[in-house]
Amino acid sequence: MDAPDFAKGGGLLPAIAQDAATGEVLMLAYMNREAWTKTLETGKVHYWSRSRNRLWLKGETSGHVQMLREARLDCDGDTLLLKVEQLGGAACHTGRRSCFHRRVTPEGLVTEGEPVFDPREVYGT
Amino acid sequence: MDAPDFAKGGGLLPAIAQDAATGEVLMLAYMNREAWTKTLETGKVHYWSRSRNRLWLKGETSGHVQMLREARLDCDGDTLLLKVEQLGGAACHTGRRSCFHRRVTPEGLVTEGEPVFDPREVYGT
Repeated sequence: MDAPDFAKGGGLLPAIAQDAATGEVLMLAYMNREAWTKTLETGKVHYWSRSRNRLWLKGETSGHVQMLREARLDCDGDTLLLKVEQLGGAACHTGRRSCFHRRVTPEGLVTEGEPVFDPREVYGT
Repeated sequence: MDAPDFAKGGGLLPAIAQDAATGEVLMLAYMNREAWTKTLETGKVHYWSRSRNRLWLKGETSGHVQMLREARLDCDGDTLLLKVEQLGGAACHTGRRSCFHRRVTPEGLVTEGEPVFDPREVYGT
């Protein structure tokens, strides 16, 4: 197939955001066709927020937009890989570079890495 | 939360496999609790095959098992990141290192990278 197959995911496909420079996996969120089209049109990554049930320009509140550098589609057309430049240096709402900042160990989860920004300052909560 | 929240995905969570040495994103597949438990117990990555509706030891046919080197959980507990050693050098059923071997361009998808193995020899089809 020659394009993302949004029907396979009931309209939503997972999209992995990876730092284009370092290769670090930053986050995973979901895209519908509208988010995908907006992302290609603007060069700024848009997702579909499942919790808010609306189009979501990543960084719309924090200013920490993801600039799309490259998009890749997997072999069966139902997952996207986005290589991005993460403005502000952090993808996670906790202020850490990556949402995957918790390592699984036999003793439980270990949080690694210091926040790049203070979420209370950015989100005002 | 201290563990993957399988309920959030209706029992299935996306799991990203990333090459532990190079950082290349190899594939995305899904895990249920059984697949997750088996992966931790054996050190070999197991997924839940949505198409075959059964537990799937990655590499069970090809021998191209993924050895788990590190597992990470995202901030809201509904996506897994697996750092793996990909035996056989390729994760994709097409014989290429990564399932994300198709780059999105304005002119359509461009397939990049040569197969590491011949899928006809490995799968006998």
